[in-house]
Amino acid sequence: MSRVAVLAGGVGAARFLDGLVRVVPPTDVTAIVNVGDDMEWSGLHISPDLDTVTYTLADLVNPETGWGLRGESRRTLDRLSELGGPDWFMIGDLDLATHLYRTHRLSQGDPLSAITRDLTRRLGLELAITPVTDDQLRTVVETDSGELAFQDYFVKRRAADPVHSLRFDGANSSSPAPGVIDSLQEADVIAIAPSNPFLSIDPLLSVPGVRDAVTSSAAPVVAISPIIGGQAVKGPAADILQSLGHDVSALGVARIYDLLADVFILDEEDASLATEIDAETGMRVVVMATLMKDVEAKMALASGTLKAALDAG
Amino acid sequence: MSRVAVLAGGVGAARFLDGLVRVVPPTDVTAIVNVGDDMEWSGLHISPDLDTVTYTLADLVNPETGWGLRGESRRTLDRLSELGGPDWFMIGDLDLATHLYRTHRLSQGDPLSAITRDLTRRLGLELAITPVTDDQLRTVVETDSGELAFQDYFVKRRAADPVHSLRFDGANSSSPAPGVIDSLQEADVIAIAPSNPFLSIDPLLSVPGVRDAVTSSAAPVVAISPIIGGQAVKGPAADILQSLGHDVSALGVARIYDLLADVFILDEEDASLATEIDAETGMRVVVMATLMKDVEAKMALASGTLKAALDAG
Repeated sequence: MSRVAVLAGGVGAARFLDGLVRVVPPTDVTAIVNVGDDMEWSGLHISPDLDTVTYTLADLVNPETGWGLRGESRRTLDRLSELGGPDWFMIGDLDLATHLYRTHRLSQGDPLSAITRDLTRRLGLELAITPVTDDQLRTVVETDSGELAFQDYFVKRRAADPVHSLRFDGANSSSPAPGVIDSLQEADVIAIAPSNPFLSIDPLLSVPGVRDAVTSSAAPVVAISPIIGGQAVKGPAADILQSLGHDVSALGVARIYDLLADVFILDEEDASLATEIDAETGMRVVVMATLMKDVEAKMALASGTLKAALDAG
Repeated sequence: MSRVAVLAGGVGAARFLDGLVRVVPPTDVTAIVNVGDDMEWSGLHISPDLDTVTYTLADLVNPETGWGLRGESRRTLDRLSELGGPDWFMIGDLDLATHLYRTHRLSQGDPLSAITRDLTRRLGLELAITPVTDDQLRTVVETDSGELAFQDYFVKRRAADPVHSLRFDGANSSSPAPGVIDSLQEADVIAIAPSNPFLSIDPLLSVPGVRDAVTSSAAPVVAISPIIGGQAVKGPAADILQSLGHDVSALGVARIYDLLADVFILDEEDASLATEIDAETGMRVVVMATLMKDVEAKMALASGTLKAALDAG
């Protein structure tokens, strides 16, 4: 009665999902996760968003950062730094095991979706977490300093370069991973997590068939604004809205999701924008607390989001 | 006056080299190291013999095993094991940094020899340590259980399968790494370390040009028996001698090196074989203590080996 498919990026999506699986049966939830941020690092395949979602749902995540593992150490990275190797991407000793496992399986020819399923099952998770595609899809960021691979832009250069445009290399020739389209078609609610619209949600929609499955679904589509009071809760969403010429506000986000979503969740702090968004877009606007500062807040946002969607459906 | 080129495998060669750099200037020593044991492990390029030689010479090696690093930990490997990943190949957290560094550089297009040179310089080593080739060369072991990649045979299956034959994939199309042929041609002494003749020395000689450079060199060539009292000091040399139909003794080894070496170093324990080896081969036989149980023994073997070679030259 409430199968939920969630379009998901990293930290914001992970926290939303953590609330969601506490208010509906986890087996009813499918997280369709961005892989545009994936990278090869010293031969290893790293999937930051898949790991952030998995670690958060498995209650293994470092609560201070929202990514990486609790109780992490950096024996390997410190030594790598001493050797003169690349040390700008923080990879802890425990985290490394995930990347080694994933790369090992990939080298055996297993698809990323099957590997992710096995990892999440091994960690005791009941929801489905899947990459949007098993094919290679890489976000390329065009900046004042030229084209940058996503993690170069985001981690190495700390998202400091103004962004002119984004490209999703490989998207055109990619296919949705098994179950992705089904989960959207069979969903009772489709939620767009409070993730970066450009860096997290756009890559998902760039995989052929995904946008159509969302827009043609009978289920209500509900989007949660990742911008509160003109600022991103986390990450460079506000900077990117600005440099791409959008309004740096929930209104700017609402315009982006207008043709995709039926319902738009706005934070209480932005309640004054509700009338304008309502007038300008075709979405039904619902105001609630969206800052997920603890488990109760996560659960309240999840159930509020579902209720808003189902009321509209 | 005593430039020394050493054909080297892993632990035995590393210990011999450790003595050698204490009796001649390290800058006069070139270690030409086997890469037939190299493997890809979860996306990482691992060079066991290069690492064993490097770690030993840098005084970082685990003295109990003769390979790996002192003070090593296994945070990553233990987690990988929990995740259901491949845990049969012991890779410690510190060791992992070497593999990540190497793989990172390889992925940037740097040759293994340049990477090895930078690593050894970074660790303060003055001798030259070089892979025999920058090209891919892989030892394949034909056994009762079929063809096995070297580390499958050696580590995963604990060298328990009788060996029918060995093959060095890629050897025919490989080239010596920069400096390898020069170091053999310019050497005052060429030493064949007490390594496995089949698994460590043969792969070196299978690289086109290397065997010729050894046999055509004006320098005396001296080989040290890795077999003492019919047993290998370390590793499966004795088993392989037997399964390939050789005499499991220093005599069996001497026959293998007959056409390659001028001088054969025999352990005191095998002194009774000296006459037979002398009669049957063209090599001059010199008896000395070859067990490298401490630094003094290593130094004595190194200087004894050089003296025996130069006396013959």
